[in-house]
Amino acid sequence: MYAAPAIQKLLDELERLPGVGPKSAQRIAYWILNADRATALRLSEAIAEVKETVRFCSRCFNYAEGELCDICSSAKRDHGIICVVSEPRDIPPIERTAVFSGVYHVLGGALSPMEGIGPNDLHIAELMKRLAAEEVQEVVLATNPNVEGETTASYLARLIKPLGIAVTRPASGLPVGGDLEFADEVTLGRAIEARRPL
Amino acid sequence: MYAAPAIQKLLDELERLPGVGPKSAQRIAYWILNADRATALRLSEAIAEVKETVRFCSRCFNYAEGELCDICSSAKRDHGIICVVSEPRDIPPIERTAVFSGVYHVLGGALSPMEGIGPNDLHIAELMKRLAAEEVQEVVLATNPNVEGETTASYLARLIKPLGIAVTRPASGLPVGGDLEFADEVTLGRAIEARRPL
Repeated sequence: MYAAPAIQKLLDELERLPGVGPKSAQRIAYWILNADRATALRLSEAIAEVKETVRFCSRCFNYAEGELCDICSSAKRDHGIICVVSEPRDIPPIERTAVFSGVYHVLGGALSPMEGIGPNDLHIAELMKRLAAEEVQEVVLATNPNVEGETTASYLARLIKPLGIAVTRPASGLPVGGDLEFADEVTLGRAIEARRPL
Repeated sequence: MYAAPAIQKLLDELERLPGVGPKSAQRIAYWILNADRATALRLSEAIAEVKETVRFCSRCFNYAEGELCDICSSAKRDHGIICVVSEPRDIPPIERTAVFSGVYHVLGGALSPMEGIGPNDLHIAELMKRLAAEEVQEVVLATNPNVEGETTASYLARLIKPLGIAVTRPASGLPVGGDLEFADEVTLGRAIEARRPL
């Protein structure tokens, strides 16, 4: 398509973003062209800044702006409960629930023999070091409820249980507000198995 | 939600973009965090560069990197046919059809009594000056096929016809009420080829 070179370059870069196709890239590019200079530059700088300032927390491998992330360096968090997740992006949804006050450990992926991802490709050794050094009472294995996540959780449970630390996993069940009619069999089966007295 | 300040700032800026809600902003932010530095900075710089280098063509009001846009300054284009559009974003879809070899004139909007947009708010005086100064045989009124676009086309047709210049409009075939920007190439190409005098 025709576009001034600078616009074409912007379109090319925007199209790399996840969920952004040629039409959305065009909408966004024209929005940027129409936006006032300050607004557009704030976006440009926010992208550059995030690459300058954000690195991995040396303890839990969440994104951090200092040596430790805000959660690891907080005295208000319960450092005796570690929630293990696959990726940093899994942390904000858990934080939004406001029911977890412990700390995290990010594995950086999940075990997947299909993709050749083994224990040494994840931050598992670092987790085990934390469990040896810190006083931890419970590890919550909040990997994704899919094949790789379940495999990873089972693997970690086998490693951690012998240390005498409680190992838990978030309950599988029906989504709140969802329709039983539309639940998939596996979810519904697990929900029934995990039924609790009222 | 919890996020490091630099990430939160990026999320805030991303959420301003058209078609980008909180979930897409998060997906894009994590993509940027995971991307290699060079890729992320190319996006950041493309945004800044477009605001530095792109301005309006002094003749047709399309986006341009110099005094004139590439189309106005091209000797390969037929400067005797001017296609009038509402916005710069309407030009790429017409260029993609490859059936139009003339030049453009961007109005910067469409007449809308509802929104208080009158002839003096659009680049109509500049269009009339071009028609007086340049040798123009035909004006194609490719404003959007909606109320404002039709109103604008009728208004311009009444102004231009007395000058003895042919005035045409892309054939109906474009979905009425739709946006020219989102028309598919074949429909738009056929509509332009089948343009008829008003």
